[in-house]
Amino acid sequence: MTQEQAGTREIAFVAFEGLTPLDLVGPLQAFTVLELFNPQYKAVVVAETLEPLGTDGPLKLVADKTFEQVPSPYALMIPGGAAPAMKAMSNESLLTYIRKAGTSAEIVTSTCTGALILAAAGVLEGRKATTHWAFSKQLERMGVEYVPDRWVEDGKFTSSAGIAAGLDMALDVIGKLVGEATARQVQLMLEYDPQPPLGAIDWDQIDRNMLDPVVDGWIREGLAERPDLVSRLVTQTS
Amino acid sequence: MTQEQAGTREIAFVAFEGLTPLDLVGPLQAFTVLELFNPQYKAVVVAETLEPLGTDGPLKLVADKTFEQVPSPYALMIPGGAAPAMKAMSNESLLTYIRKAGTSAEIVTSTCTGALILAAAGVLEGRKATTHWAFSKQLERMGVEYVPDRWVEDGKFTSSAGIAAGLDMALDVIGKLVGEATARQVQLMLEYDPQPPLGAIDWDQIDRNMLDPVVDGWIREGLAERPDLVSRLVTQTS
Repeated sequence: MTQEQAGTREIAFVAFEGLTPLDLVGPLQAFTVLELFNPQYKAVVVAETLEPLGTDGPLKLVADKTFEQVPSPYALMIPGGAAPAMKAMSNESLLTYIRKAGTSAEIVTSTCTGALILAAAGVLEGRKATTHWAFSKQLERMGVEYVPDRWVEDGKFTSSAGIAAGLDMALDVIGKLVGEATARQVQLMLEYDPQPPLGAIDWDQIDRNMLDPVVDGWIREGLAERPDLVSRLVTQTS
Repeated sequence: MTQEQAGTREIAFVAFEGLTPLDLVGPLQAFTVLELFNPQYKAVVVAETLEPLGTDGPLKLVADKTFEQVPSPYALMIPGGAAPAMKAMSNESLLTYIRKAGTSAEIVTSTCTGALILAAAGVLEGRKATTHWAFSKQLERMGVEYVPDRWVEDGKFTSSAGIAAGLDMALDVIGKLVGEATARQVQLMLEYDPQPPLGAIDWDQIDRNMLDPVVDGWIREGLAERPDLVSRLVTQTS
């Protein structure tokens, strides 16, 4: 923890075209609230440019810093998405930033298919991680050991499962950084007292392969210019 | 349900300067996924202009439609925030849109202090609703009966508690619109199987008045130009 005495700790949330906004905004909101209690932590949203970025829905996002402006964040948070996250796996500017900033960062996290982007950057090889349930095989095909947990910590890497899992992971990371008491205050401010109206997901009823054709489509769409990655990742090679 | 046969149902998420992004993005992500299963539902993000809007953190958001472009959405979703949501309570352009679009909409929802904005628009008077736990008295002072539930349905209005509660509410609304089976599919795609690392909030330990000085500060900051609303809403009138 060499930055312990260095003052501000930047928590860099990486944005890219087409991302799934809840992957980013769930953890970001937790760290935004953390700043109220502990201003040492400073959330930033970084992207290649400060132009508006499309998402998987009708919203556009604008980062507040470019990659160049945040070369050495304390923590790096990578969201995911569908086809655009597959495309991000071949975005050299993004991958270069992840490699550099990820090397100096004390903490690197992913939400959803953000784990695949970390894997594409080459920083997860041989590690245990998780991702969205529909992408378990793709993570394994990138040389990562898939663990079907809500979030998985392996060294400085903490990955979370799909989309909504990012908030659980963020609160766990916050608890480890600043202690349970502050993490509870953040949870209370967020009023994160979940009551899914239909209850929890019954995993015994879920076939993690059921979206294979859809996932294959996203891979082919996002990685059209990288046939090597397409053939490595798709399930049906027809 | 007069729009039943009319084809597309626009779900309008209202954005304003300084909002709490998770209030908007939680429900938006659920409706974005719903479109994959039922394209009749079309999420849109509406704002006064299409300029980037600040949030309570480092992220900026850009709406895809102006208020004028979405005069009669099927549903209207209002996020909240801290001082900027108080300011929104005096934003006549926003309130006028909420009154007009809210009158024709079949469903009107709020997350967090969005309920106070609905109240300021005059559409919640005499109704039951909920809001962020720290704003219960302020909601009552706007003539609304506060109910400390995760979400509260009263006629066509469904309000949810603070920030993270919007996703629970959105899944409930989706279940009522399209049935439990599709709502479960949306929940599964979102991987919303919450596991807060420190467990649920223990409400027996929480004093809902403990943030009164902070809330008063947000009211005075956001409503500096509306002393009438400040004196109606603050707890300490010193």
